[in-house]
Amino acid sequence: MIQRKRILSGMRPTGRLHLGNLHGALDNWVQLQKQYECFFFVADWHALTTDYASSSRIRQNIWNMILDWLSVGLDPQQCTFFIQSDIKEHAELSLLLGMITPLPWLERNPTYKEHLQQMDQKDLSTYGFLGYPVLQAADIIMYKANGVPVGKDQLLHVEFTREIARRFNFIYQREVFPIPDPLLTEVPVLPGLDGRKMSKSYGNCIYITESAESISEKIAKMMTDPQRVRRTDRGNPELSPVFAYHRLYSPPEEVADVAEGCRTARIGCVECKKRLTQNVLARLGPIREKRLRLEGQPHVVREILEAGREVAGREAGRTMVEVREAIGLSMNPECRVEERKN
Amino acid sequence: MIQRKRILSGMRPTGRLHLGNLHGALDNWVQLQKQYECFFFVADWHALTTDYASSSRIRQNIWNMILDWLSVGLDPQQCTFFIQSDIKEHAELSLLLGMITPLPWLERNPTYKEHLQQMDQKDLSTYGFLGYPVLQAADIIMYKANGVPVGKDQLLHVEFTREIARRFNFIYQREVFPIPDPLLTEVPVLPGLDGRKMSKSYGNCIYITESAESISEKIAKMMTDPQRVRRTDRGNPELSPVFAYHRLYSPPEEVADVAEGCRTARIGCVECKKRLTQNVLARLGPIREKRLRLEGQPHVVREILEAGREVAGREAGRTMVEVREAIGLSMNPECRVEERKN
Repeated sequence: MIQRKRILSGMRPTGRLHLGNLHGALDNWVQLQKQYECFFFVADWHALTTDYASSSRIRQNIWNMILDWLSVGLDPQQCTFFIQSDIKEHAELSLLLGMITPLPWLERNPTYKEHLQQMDQKDLSTYGFLGYPVLQAADIIMYKANGVPVGKDQLLHVEFTREIARRFNFIYQREVFPIPDPLLTEVPVLPGLDGRKMSKSYGNCIYITESAESISEKIAKMMTDPQRVRRTDRGNPELSPVFAYHRLYSPPEEVADVAEGCRTARIGCVECKKRLTQNVLARLGPIREKRLRLEGQPHVVREILEAGREVAGREAGRTMVEVREAIGLSMNPECRVEERKN
Repeated sequence: MIQRKRILSGMRPTGRLHLGNLHGALDNWVQLQKQYECFFFVADWHALTTDYASSSRIRQNIWNMILDWLSVGLDPQQCTFFIQSDIKEHAELSLLLGMITPLPWLERNPTYKEHLQQMDQKDLSTYGFLGYPVLQAADIIMYKANGVPVGKDQLLHVEFTREIARRFNFIYQREVFPIPDPLLTEVPVLPGLDGRKMSKSYGNCIYITESAESISEKIAKMMTDPQRVRRTDRGNPELSPVFAYHRLYSPPEEVADVAEGCRTARIGCVECKKRLTQNVLARLGPIREKRLRLEGQPHVVREILEAGREVAGREAGRTMVEVREAIGLSMNPECRVEERKN
């Protein structure tokens, strides 16, 4: 049997996930777990790089996110998932990689520069924020991942990880880390209710496990083609977020039908939205049911997390033995038997 | 019974220690262990901040240093000592403190600027080197140390640690960390064989556990007052490193006698050195004997390290529970029982 390639990906614990997360990442993860050996993790330490001063909800956010992961079909029988801060080795490896990371590699990181500008309400000129690519590199190479699923905008992060892995192997003259490849993923763009990018901070989200009533209400109030003022006006579906949702939730013939109906004014926005609502609920209903079931079985979720922690911990432990050996650091006590002579 | 105040201090694993280390730090530690609850640690991760590219001897250096610590009288019954990298919590706390550390605090660190200039043969513009005060702060506050023995030149480091501890307590609104005080220590200055500062890189050291023959030879070749060329010339003891050693190794009346004998040319350098050699050997002989005994009992040393690791690990574990709780991070799995509701 050929060993499956290993994939690693993580997500910051933002709490309940929305449709942007579903189509932008989770749908892809659910596919990946069938083809690859997947490690998915909750990046709670990463959340602190930007939210160190408002961290009180992290624990609750982790729990909600894990429930959503399970609800959309991440399958602990097929993949391993774990919480970053449960595996202390990530901190250790990050510290060790930091020793060999040239500062200019971090200072010229465009994402770093952008973030500093965008989030000017938070003080992000911190040591931790500057170094988040180092922690990220540790997350990835800890599991000797062969691939990292990314969008185009994250290519530079994987490039950084590759450089660090190469530098470690070079300095310590051992091929401890394979060089991971980016796994470029095309993801559909799903606008928020108001047509902007879907984001919690914009308040324009539909959540994956929201109630049917709430989803129906939100869709009913959704922005449509702003030029189509009266029912009899002809519309342009490409200008309506509702149509972008049809593309994802409705069967092809219905997508074609509502597009034509919008252009000819045969179908009004109310009907268009009703049809969308049905299709969205048909997809999200089972997810919500699963979520409600899981909420009543916290012990099951905890067992899954335990099992993931064990698998990830074992892998991380193995890697760190090689890392310490390569650097020449003290072995763990159980390995000290060999140190008789000096 | 009043609880003794807690002291923490560490030393980079440079291998066999020399008389500069003995008088500059270890003698002080041996005194401190009688008055305080002391934690002394081998700062092996710190060694990587400057020597990441030449780390192969770290393990051997740790072993040699621990043997020397025990030989000069650090007493595992009185104090706890451990190897930094054995306590992974130091990496975790360092990571978490990094999140709240403003970059300018690190960039304006004068020690950082100096080092960058002095060690221009090594590439030290690394993330790890910039952040070594964060790791150091983690080392100290992990044990809730009340005091840190330092020389004047290290006062700024303790100041940084105090600032970080205050900032943590402030941001997370809990008094998790006491603010440690610097414990200013006057240490005698002991020059190297050539009159410069004693340092391995100058090749001018006498090692604590060197053989009597080797010590005798080194003292015989030691620099003296360079102006006293002939036996009959009068000398100035203050210009002779040999006299600096007499001050530390000879009884007061002998110190007075050789000083006067040098000034009047009553005593020649050869005799002065012979008398010094006797006194040095009288002090170092028992240390060397203890070292030789320990070299034959590696299991005893390993047990001591094990015990220290256990005590330090327990303390670190306790602190980290408070730290994670304060930040709001996921509890360790065994504490997750409470997370039923979300």
